[in-house]
Amino acid sequence: MPGSREFEIIERFFTRAQTDQAVRVGIGDDAAVLEAAGPVAVAVDTLVAGTHFPEGLAPRAIGHRSLAVNLSDLAAVGAKPRWATLALTLPDAGVTWIKEFAAGFFALADRHGVSLVGGDTTRGPLSVTVQVIGDLVHLPLLRSAGRVGDLIFVSGSLGAGAAGLACIEIADGERSEDASDLVARFSYPEPRVELGLALAGLAHAAIDVSDGLVADLGHLCAQSGCGAELDLAALPLSESLLALYPGDNGLDFALHGGDDYELCFTVAPADADRVREVAAGVGTPVTEVGQLTESAGIIGQGDGESRVLEAKGFVHFG
Amino acid sequence: MPGSREFEIIERFFTRAQTDQAVRVGIGDDAAVLEAAGPVAVAVDTLVAGTHFPEGLAPRAIGHRSLAVNLSDLAAVGAKPRWATLALTLPDAGVTWIKEFAAGFFALADRHGVSLVGGDTTRGPLSVTVQVIGDLVHLPLLRSAGRVGDLIFVSGSLGAGAAGLACIEIADGERSEDASDLVARFSYPEPRVELGLALAGLAHAAIDVSDGLVADLGHLCAQSGCGAELDLAALPLSESLLALYPGDNGLDFALHGGDDYELCFTVAPADADRVREVAAGVGTPVTEVGQLTESAGIIGQGDGESRVLEAKGFVHFG
Repeated sequence: MPGSREFEIIERFFTRAQTDQAVRVGIGDDAAVLEAAGPVAVAVDTLVAGTHFPEGLAPRAIGHRSLAVNLSDLAAVGAKPRWATLALTLPDAGVTWIKEFAAGFFALADRHGVSLVGGDTTRGPLSVTVQVIGDLVHLPLLRSAGRVGDLIFVSGSLGAGAAGLACIEIADGERSEDASDLVARFSYPEPRVELGLALAGLAHAAIDVSDGLVADLGHLCAQSGCGAELDLAALPLSESLLALYPGDNGLDFALHGGDDYELCFTVAPADADRVREVAAGVGTPVTEVGQLTESAGIIGQGDGESRVLEAKGFVHFG
Repeated sequence: MPGSREFEIIERFFTRAQTDQAVRVGIGDDAAVLEAAGPVAVAVDTLVAGTHFPEGLAPRAIGHRSLAVNLSDLAAVGAKPRWATLALTLPDAGVTWIKEFAAGFFALADRHGVSLVGGDTTRGPLSVTVQVIGDLVHLPLLRSAGRVGDLIFVSGSLGAGAAGLACIEIADGERSEDASDLVARFSYPEPRVELGLALAGLAHAAIDVSDGLVADLGHLCAQSGCGAELDLAALPLSESLLALYPGDNGLDFALHGGDDYELCFTVAPADADRVREVAAGVGTPVTEVGQLTESAGIIGQGDGESRVLEAKGFVHFG
């Protein structure tokens, strides 16, 4: 575990009163000790400055994002987040930066009842790796569980994450209200934890949209051994996206932009109404956007035409 | 989870046939699903090139070390390692480099029955974060459980890790047998997993020696509310260390050098013989080096003199 100076950073900025009774040993020993009571789901994601977010992104947003992308992975398997560890590599340890990062991290952690149980801070180029552990109450939602004929749903709206990043890169000056909305969507993505929990045991397959709908739905289809048809006119695009990027530009962000952290999931047609009910119950909009098909590949239907959609290999920022 | 290119790296080099029945979902979905059956121990450590190891260290050694330092943390709480996740950030994805890294990682993982259940590869400055999860069969060994009067033991020998790093930094040319031995100790530290398991329920406090004996024993004493006396003549120094760094130089490495990944632990005097027996049973040498004291601070006794030992704040490489 960390050297003495690193130790102080964790102690000072990341140790809080422990209220989770299942955390028998938290930060401060060689390992955390946790009372797991059954199957757990584990996810890990690294955010590297200049690769996954622009160098100048606000530290509060980086703290939020580093946890959010992992909570989104737990949401995609229908797990309830419980614990997180944080490995933070920093070029220097400015107090304000660390405080802001911690504020962003803990604000999201608190909303989802997540305890930080371990940490490691090191000196080096800015990079954050978070691992999360969650409880599985139901059987996990898997990428491989889609069945031909399933309806495809997505949560929230698509394209705003990547469009927000584009806004950040275009201008430093004053932003329109629409641009600010998109930038906020990139900076503070909202993991669909409650929806994932509500879908467990009800939906078939699920994945979170981190690399773009076509790429991620493609993973789901590949692992489920099927293809998909998408109704392009049905794709949920936010008003701010449509205002700034009308027409094909907006559609392109929705299909291929990354960083949305919405859920894409499939359900038996007979369960579609029940899915709409449970989604409404947790306050998350969901939209039916297509259907799983027997033939491989992803086909987009729109304007009376159909075209094959290929993942563009969007590789985040940079 | 990772973008498509990153996805391929994990699939290609880090996915193996899963033989662990407790891994219900491994690499390839949004999260791994693991059958935990009781309390678990969780540790995380990051290795950054240029900070924790020299830039040119062999990739096989980096793969080994990245897991070893985490298994050492589990050993220090007396947990049995089960699962690991790997977050690998690479400046470029040379196939030979990745294969060698994976070979080092998996050779150690296989020796300890550890399954890799999740991964994320990203592009950026070389950095490796590994998280490990272990089962706790006994109550955990804690840094805070030391009692005044406990005997202090260390496993193996001290100082070789930091001395090995010094050898790497001094010369690229042909090395003496002693220097090669020390370099190997730095490059391939051996986590004391079996010893930690054998000590659980028997020893009081434990910590792994990653920052140097004085620094790490200092953490143990601080958390146990006591001090310590060390018998400097009793400290176990390897022959290769003594050959290359005789006298105070060798002692300095043993007291303040990091990267040993030996265990330092405390036991009731009545249990000392039993500790020697269980250590012999797992084939790990242990040496009694001192005693916990009521007065704070760490005192070194040697040559008829005693002196206060202060942690030198050794911060690894660089």
